[in-house]
Amino acid sequence: MYRPEIKVFDCTIRDGGLINNYKFTDDFVKAVYRACCEAGVDFIELGKKLAESDDYNRKDYGKWNFCDDDDVQRVIDSYECENPPLVAVMYDVGRVDISALKPRDNTPFDMIRTACYVPDIDKGLDLAIRCKDLGYLTTINIMAASAAIENDLLEALAQVNDCKEVDYLYLVDSYGAFYSEQVSHYLNLYKKYAPDKELGFHAHNNQQLGFANTQQAIIEGVNMLDATINGIGRGAGNCNLELLLMFLKNPKFDVRPIYKTIQEDFVPLRQEIEWGFNDIYGISGCMNQHPRAAMKFRADKKNQDNAYDFFVESTRLDDTDIA
Amino acid sequence: MYRPEIKVFDCTIRDGGLINNYKFTDDFVKAVYRACCEAGVDFIELGKKLAESDDYNRKDYGKWNFCDDDDVQRVIDSYECENPPLVAVMYDVGRVDISALKPRDNTPFDMIRTACYVPDIDKGLDLAIRCKDLGYLTTINIMAASAAIENDLLEALAQVNDCKEVDYLYLVDSYGAFYSEQVSHYLNLYKKYAPDKELGFHAHNNQQLGFANTQQAIIEGVNMLDATINGIGRGAGNCNLELLLMFLKNPKFDVRPIYKTIQEDFVPLRQEIEWGFNDIYGISGCMNQHPRAAMKFRADKKNQDNAYDFFVESTRLDDTDIA
Repeated sequence: MYRPEIKVFDCTIRDGGLINNYKFTDDFVKAVYRACCEAGVDFIELGKKLAESDDYNRKDYGKWNFCDDDDVQRVIDSYECENPPLVAVMYDVGRVDISALKPRDNTPFDMIRTACYVPDIDKGLDLAIRCKDLGYLTTINIMAASAAIENDLLEALAQVNDCKEVDYLYLVDSYGAFYSEQVSHYLNLYKKYAPDKELGFHAHNNQQLGFANTQQAIIEGVNMLDATINGIGRGAGNCNLELLLMFLKNPKFDVRPIYKTIQEDFVPLRQEIEWGFNDIYGISGCMNQHPRAAMKFRADKKNQDNAYDFFVESTRLDDTDIA
Repeated sequence: MYRPEIKVFDCTIRDGGLINNYKFTDDFVKAVYRACCEAGVDFIELGKKLAESDDYNRKDYGKWNFCDDDDVQRVIDSYECENPPLVAVMYDVGRVDISALKPRDNTPFDMIRTACYVPDIDKGLDLAIRCKDLGYLTTINIMAASAAIENDLLEALAQVNDCKEVDYLYLVDSYGAFYSEQVSHYLNLYKKYAPDKELGFHAHNNQQLGFANTQQAIIEGVNMLDATINGIGRGAGNCNLELLLMFLKNPKFDVRPIYKTIQEDFVPLRQEIEWGFNDIYGISGCMNQHPRAAMKFRADKKNQDNAYDFFVESTRLDDTDIA
């Protein structure tokens, strides 16, 4: 039996873009959109909507970091679908221009997801309120919950709970540090301190637990589930959408279009960019570290598999005299 | 806090041997043994102990398929260790010669693990009894529980429970088909129908759930945990020993020697043989299939990543007219 409240949220382009500077071809983005349409996925996130500047421009940072309305509309228009997914885009606190956002009726977007760390929760809520005023569905994705001081996190959760303009509140395992017991622990805090909010979960696969932890979130009552095709995403990547769809029993889902785009579009992409579990990300996740050290280590192709060296290097980070 | 009853069982050579016909070099086996010694692992399984014949000979099938006493003793003698792991070897029902087994005091082995399918449970128990009579620790590893008719499985569990010569009873997810909820379901059956037995769990990683399911087994009270270095094993491989050791909090474990052998011995091996999760094994696991179809599909290097084709092929297996 399936739980009809469960929604599947594809963030393939948005999270995958973190490893290729959002330089997916239009054809690739259209293929992902089409696969999600055919598979019955509920939401699709096509990138970030950051403010453009001279330093931070489309040429260097890729068009899906900015998600101009026209670019996104062209993707949507490329495939006709009876029940297309709702289209989302991500806002990063401090890097967006909300004054440029048009009302929902005049854009291709249905949802704006706002990502922020605990200390920026007020800025995040401000963005969410403004987005809601423009008619959008909204989320607050609190990043790196595993690295927050718990009391600060609880205060942030209570603030989100009091903000009626937030539709979904996300637990995000940014560092891929959670075991299932931590998923339960944090979600119990979320349910206690933000009891009025519908919850979402966003995993990372550092310890090969992205899919398993998403299942644990389901068990804990979470109904909004992030996943990416083939698990693409920064570092160890995310929960694999195709595995998740096979786990869920809702007859509206069809996994075949996802495997079709994997075969046709993702297998070739794997020759160009790397994602997924490896020893280095496993250590990084277990140590509850930001993945930047692991990514830097992997960038040195000659030594990228030296797991022992990385382990020693990572533990020695704590050796410096700060007691 | 850790659970002192938990034992970690390394089956790197035994399960890894399934993908290279047990043709590990002596140096490789010694490196694995040394790493397990230094890491504080409780048990190590150095291969199978099958009966040799003209057809089934050491040259074609690799010496670790036969585990002659002298070969194993040389490995043990290669590294001195205060608390070395107990040494195990695997018996396959129908492929062994128990009359050739000497008493425990005269061999390098401490434990004989007997693997059998549900229909062969009586043969498996017969072997376990004879091994116990010779002084060995014994296990019954019931393979492919996910594919057994449940009532037959329950009868087998009750038989094992009544057999005092069996020290450990294993739940084995041979097809990598379990989600955590199935791990709990089956373990509840095991606890109900074999309440007197200490339980073990052996995962496969087809759906990236090998490590997660092993955690679930711990939650359900299992104290004997199989794992392999770097997750090596047939098809998608097993629970990664290094991830498991980092999860467990027992101070006797040290994961560094495991990462050292990964860096020095396993990374080069990855150039020669393949193991670990991929799309094909994911589909195979979700469909609760024996991995032979997936392995055959992967063997065709040109088309090995055609996940959509494999999905269609796999589902059409059910199309034949057998209703």
